Amino acid sequence: MLLHSLFISTSSTISKTLTPYKTLTLALLFPRRLSSMAAAAGEDALRRALAEKQAAADAQAEAVRAIKARAGASEAEVDAAVEALKALRVEAGATAKRLAAAAAAAGSNGGGGDWAGSREAFRQAVVNTLERRLFYIPSFKIYRGVAGLYDYGPPGCAVKSNVLAFWRQHFVLEENMLEVDCPCVTPEVVLKASGHVDKFTDLMVKDEKTGTCYRADHLLKDFCKEKLEKDPKLSPEQAAELKHVLAVLDDLSADELGAKIKEYGITAPDTKNPLSEPYPFNLMFQTSIGPSGLSPGYMRPETAQGIFVNFKDLYYYNGNKLPFAAAQIGQAFRNEISPRQGLLRVREFTLAEIEHFVDPEDKSHPKFGDVADLEFLMFPRELQLAGESAKPMILREAVSKGTVNNETLGYFIGRVYLFLTRLGIDKDRLRFRQHLPNEMAHYAADCWDAEIECSYGWIECVGIADRSAYDLRAHTEKSGVPLVAYEKFAEPKEVEKLVIVPSKKELGLAFKGNQKMVVEALEAMSEKEALEMKSALESKGEVDFHVCTLGKDVVIKQNMVSISIEKKKEHQRVFTPSVIEPSFGIGRIIYCLFEHSFYTRPSKSEDEQLNVFRFPPLVAPIKCTVFPLVKSQEFDDVAKVIAKSLTAAGISHIIDITGTSIGKRYARTDEIGVPFAVTVDSTTSVTIRERDSKEQIRVEVDKVASVMKEVADGQSTWADVTSRFPAHTQPDKD
Amino acid sequence: MLLHSLFISTSSTISKTLTPYKTLTLALLFPRRLSSMAAAAGEDALRRALAEKQAAADAQAEAVRAIKARAGASEAEVDAAVEALKALRVEAGATAKRLAAAAAAAGSNGGGGDWAGSREAFRQAVVNTLERRLFYIPSFKIYRGVAGLYDYGPPGCAVKSNVLAFWRQHFVLEENMLEVDCPCVTPEVVLKASGHVDKFTDLMVKDEKTGTCYRADHLLKDFCKEKLEKDPKLSPEQAAELKHVLAVLDDLSADELGAKIKEYGITAPDTKNPLSEPYPFNLMFQTSIGPSGLSPGYMRPETAQGIFVNFKDLYYYNGNKLPFAAAQIGQAFRNEISPRQGLLRVREFTLAEIEHFVDPEDKSHPKFGDVADLEFLMFPRELQLAGESAKPMILREAVSKGTVNNETLGYFIGRVYLFLTRLGIDKDRLRFRQHLPNEMAHYAADCWDAEIECSYGWIECVGIADRSAYDLRAHTEKSGVPLVAYEKFAEPKEVEKLVIVPSKKELGLAFKGNQKMVVEALEAMSEKEALEMKSALESKGEVDFHVCTLGKDVVIKQNMVSISIEKKKEHQRVFTPSVIEPSFGIGRIIYCLFEHSFYTRPSKSEDEQLNVFRFPPLVAPIKCTVFPLVKSQEFDDVAKVIAKSLTAAGISHIIDITGTSIGKRYARTDEIGVPFAVTVDSTTSVTIRERDSKEQIRVEVDKVASVMKEVADGQSTWADVTSRFPAHTQPDKD
Repeated sequence: MLLHSLFISTSSTISKTLTPYKTLTLALLFPRRLSSMAAAAGEDALRRALAEKQAAADAQAEAVRAIKARAGASEAEVDAAVEALKALRVEAGATAKRLAAAAAAAGSNGGGGDWAGSREAFRQAVVNTLERRLFYIPSFKIYRGVAGLYDYGPPGCAVKSNVLAFWRQHFVLEENMLEVDCPCVTPEVVLKASGHVDKFTDLMVKDEKTGTCYRADHLLKDFCKEKLEKDPKLSPEQAAELKHVLAVLDDLSADELGAKIKEYGITAPDTKNPLSEPYPFNLMFQTSIGPSGLSPGYMRPETAQGIFVNFKDLYYYNGNKLPFAAAQIGQAFRNEISPRQGLLRVREFTLAEIEHFVDPEDKSHPKFGDVADLEFLMFPRELQLAGESAKPMILREAVSKGTVNNETLGYFIGRVYLFLTRLGIDKDRLRFRQHLPNEMAHYAADCWDAEIECSYGWIECVGIADRSAYDLRAHTEKSGVPLVAYEKFAEPKEVEKLVIVPSKKELGLAFKGNQKMVVEALEAMSEKEALEMKSALESKGEVDFHVCTLGKDVVIKQNMVSISIEKKKEHQRVFTPSVIEPSFGIGRIIYCLFEHSFYTRPSKSEDEQLNVFRFPPLVAPIKCTVFPLVKSQEFDDVAKVIAKSLTAAGISHIIDITGTSIGKRYARTDEIGVPFAVTVDSTTSVTIRERDSKEQIRVEVDKVASVMKEVADGQSTWADVTSRFPAHTQPDKD
Repeated sequence: MLLHSLFISTSSTISKTLTPYKTLTLALLFPRRLSSMAAAAGEDALRRALAEKQAAADAQAEAVRAIKARAGASEAEVDAAVEALKALRVEAGATAKRLAAAAAAAGSNGGGGDWAGSREAFRQAVVNTLERRLFYIPSFKIYRGVAGLYDYGPPGCAVKSNVLAFWRQHFVLEENMLEVDCPCVTPEVVLKASGHVDKFTDLMVKDEKTGTCYRADHLLKDFCKEKLEKDPKLSPEQAAELKHVLAVLDDLSADELGAKIKEYGITAPDTKNPLSEPYPFNLMFQTSIGPSGLSPGYMRPETAQGIFVNFKDLYYYNGNKLPFAAAQIGQAFRNEISPRQGLLRVREFTLAEIEHFVDPEDKSHPKFGDVADLEFLMFPRELQLAGESAKPMILREAVSKGTVNNETLGYFIGRVYLFLTRLGIDKDRLRFRQHLPNEMAHYAADCWDAEIECSYGWIECVGIADRSAYDLRAHTEKSGVPLVAYEKFAEPKEVEKLVIVPSKKELGLAFKGNQKMVVEALEAMSEKEALEMKSALESKGEVDFHVCTLGKDVVIKQNMVSISIEKKKEHQRVFTPSVIEPSFGIGRIIYCLFEHSFYTRPSKSEDEQLNVFRFPPLVAPIKCTVFPLVKSQEFDDVAKVIAKSLTAAGISHIIDITGTSIGKRYARTDEIGVPFAVTVDSTTSVTIRERDSKEQIRVEVDKVASVMKEVADGQSTWADVTSRFPAHTQPDKD
């Protein structure tokens, strides 16, 4: 189960989970972004400066009006006053920008103001390239689209399928996981058991006149940010209050949100009409299964439930042994109230989820040693509460100190780190953040999110949670099918067991028609209740006993029930396994990968900036291009031979026999991240150029496919290859 | 667009398409199964025999009753009479079975009565193995499931992902197709344009008392089959009538179906209550996008529409050149009224669809030569109408004779044949059946289905249709965005064009406020209307002209409009491309593959039959097993080293170090189709056994992974490998 928050709350990193027992007060006591408090002083100074500059500009504007109104003012005098006004406005504008950047940076817990200022521009450059080269396309564009739905175009689709293939190799194959593939259409009973029907909601407000819907927390957040970024009259106290609201936003109840919206006088953004009270809107797409209209169903909001309901069969398939993991890749759906943040908050997305079932009494992992020495940024609870930043930690120490709850959780954290960095995620913009107590579900043992920093801030991309026995218990209860595991004892064990034997005869005589209800109530007693009754009966001979189903107390006498502790031999332990769940938002990982892979460099003539995606060969949508250097039948034929051998080897490639200049052809393919270019410049050997270093080597025609396969499959690196083939010494063709 | 019928009508092979102009009469004139008429005589004889035997048994039963009732009848006499009755009943039962088998075989157009009789048993054996080994699992089983929804369990999921990976290699990579990935949630406007909102329906009847829904054609079909298989009193004329109804079933209108149901007195199967008139039920799962409830959406019934709406971007991506193909793999949904036939008729399934866009004036294909010499079973229209069977044809001839409409369609038929047979589909149970005129949409140029024979009969698994320009035109009209292609002329061409120039001044004077409507109506005239008006104006000076938007006729005079034919130079041709669409029902292909791969063979001791799936390595869920021959630390260590090298090479495998007998371990893995078993019987070299031949070779430990990779990837066959390594001469271990 991917945490609710993974696709719901992003810029605020306090997650909202499906827990029914939210410890709201904790959240109010420990707003997470204490670290941003240090920045507040700088913001206040900026805010004061902005107020002064705006006041000065306003005064000058008044002066200009006065001069113009005055009879006989010279043209020169008017011009000078207007120039002065312009200068003051430019100054005020610059200060406003700095304030907005500082507030935004603090708000998103990101880097300094400069980066914050350029974030938007950077994102725009990436997104423009992605859209222009059809990495993705707003879905149903010719019909003006649907918010929150995107298509992957050809290169995006190839990247996605490479990421999924690597996920299968890295997790499913490496760990011998049991992969399953369940439908998206899910009957209500399953999602009732999981809690989604009742709790998978966001709070919504409606424009009271037009009926347009908004997410209540979004409106409050926008209001607070706008104020912080643009209002020069904000006092330090007011600014602190707004920041506090932003920090606890995700934990506010409907009433608390409604009260704040009223207090701040927030209205509908488009119409300024008054808003309704906030009320919950269920985020699942609802439908109806079959023609009767009597079987409600939903499009699954996650893939995990399909695994949980199959636990019994999968456990059997695994030879009734623990631990084992099941995995699923598939579509999930969330009917967002108002999707934002482009590819990060969407209504339909691909999840890859693992449910690792383990004995709660033994969460060690035999392969933990393989990842224990990894060192990467971790952001445990203590650092967050102390207002510090994430710090590099060695995984072995994090587990041995108890920072990470257990070895299995630690193992998966390590494996996720390897997965993401091998895809090309920058390890300096990747951290593992532990959930604060108020973020976690009451049943969870521990939970860490892999967060990746991009232009939107730190984004939750993988959730790795120890969910204990919650999900299996929920489905056991609802379905009546025990989802449990067994541990056979080497020797039978002697255990003490409470035995309650109601005497039906005596109870029948005493209670007649009510006998059955009394018998059931006696049998349902907890151990504590039974022992208390036993001692009361022994001392007093009778006892008052409340029977719920009768709605009254009855008198139980000593001859009506026998209560004893008996020793029994047990041959096995029956228990509900714990589940450790790494859950991957594939679309988010891919978007962050796009940002981390993007850079620009000047063209050879230095008259323009060229875009490059530095995808590793593993994820590159196309592994190489084949270009004849000049237009010639001979070279074209060689190019076609090479293309055919690449196809046979399963290497995706494009062949471009247009006469366009080689530099332009390089630029075009660098922009979709093709790592290697094969230029046919003779009939016996060719030049292979690497995208980022622009290094070139010479390779014989009949070896091209095998060399490309080596580097594309990751068996060799470019460095390995360059050591085996001669460098191409002629000048770089672009 | 996969034809409606692919997931709707299976046992009857006359397809129902989305065509608005169904030529019902043709269907009534040419019932498809003329071939089954020959069998009818045999059935009639059986039916007469059954009636005689039942009558004899009834008479004997009467006799038994009479003997028993008679005072003084001896025990021996009673026993003899009862024995005689039993014998007659056994005979009648056997005849009833033969009749049912004969009728079923004729009905499903399958083989002889023997095969028909054993079909059910064969299917049961396959399905039992599939369910027991978790190839698939009825979804949400612990909640008693949902009809028409299935999970793929671990081996099924692996087979599916191998099939899809091969599909990508065979089609997308080989042809450089543009793969896209669009959402399942689709707004209404898109499916309105495609015709699904209005026409994607099945006819349903309701139990008038309980409200239970049934597919009208299913009830009628069941009634006819039941009668044909079990009613001994059926006259040859009545049998012929019922067979005719079965043959034209899919083409009956709501009224016709309703009339037949009434005529035959068909009632609700469970309650015998009367049924409502048939009415259409839309098969799409409906939902609502966003919180307002004002944006209806559907779960897509096919993936094709996502490609059509992106045509403009994809054409641009392809350098504005034709032909090119786009492809998509994804989930599709159909809310069946009452799903049947297990994995063949489901409510959610994976489609893989290709839309190949081509100039309608040039449907040649440069690679047709690669497949032209293939020979396989084809079932063109003429053979079907003549009541003959499918015949082997050479593809080149089928295209050159015009049996297949064009080269591109022929090329894809050939590629589909290669795809299916390489997966392991038996070429003798695979045929390409051409749609009859009444099955095809009015706009389609030609259409062929790849049908695979399994225990359910011939099943439509791939549809390959030339859909002409229909889909792109429909979306052009609805969206207003022209989805067209351009052909630049080498030289500008002179063409004649109609030019209509209304004189706004004169029209303004004449019609005042209505001027705009008249101008628009004049400009909207067709060429024919304009030329008629031109000649009328020239001869009479004025003409009556109907303006729809005014709802009346106006008088147009010669000075109000100028109509002329002008010569213009055109630099390009603008046209809507044709689309050729191969559309694959992945789940159906996999189910047929399961049946074609399944066989049983006796165990070594010959005391039981063992199940085997003879999957080719390409699709096998697990490529090899690693077994230490006997329990030993040394052998276990070697097994683990081999397993590690297999993981590194990306070869899925299972390692079994339990002490179970090697024969049992073989049997267990033969049953999930693992093609190779690596038995560790020394520390330097091992035995590799092939599943079907049970041949064994000896391979050094450090070469195991590379040998397994060769055969798993299809670079080498088992025969190649056996020629390179020594045979293992010791007796077969199982």
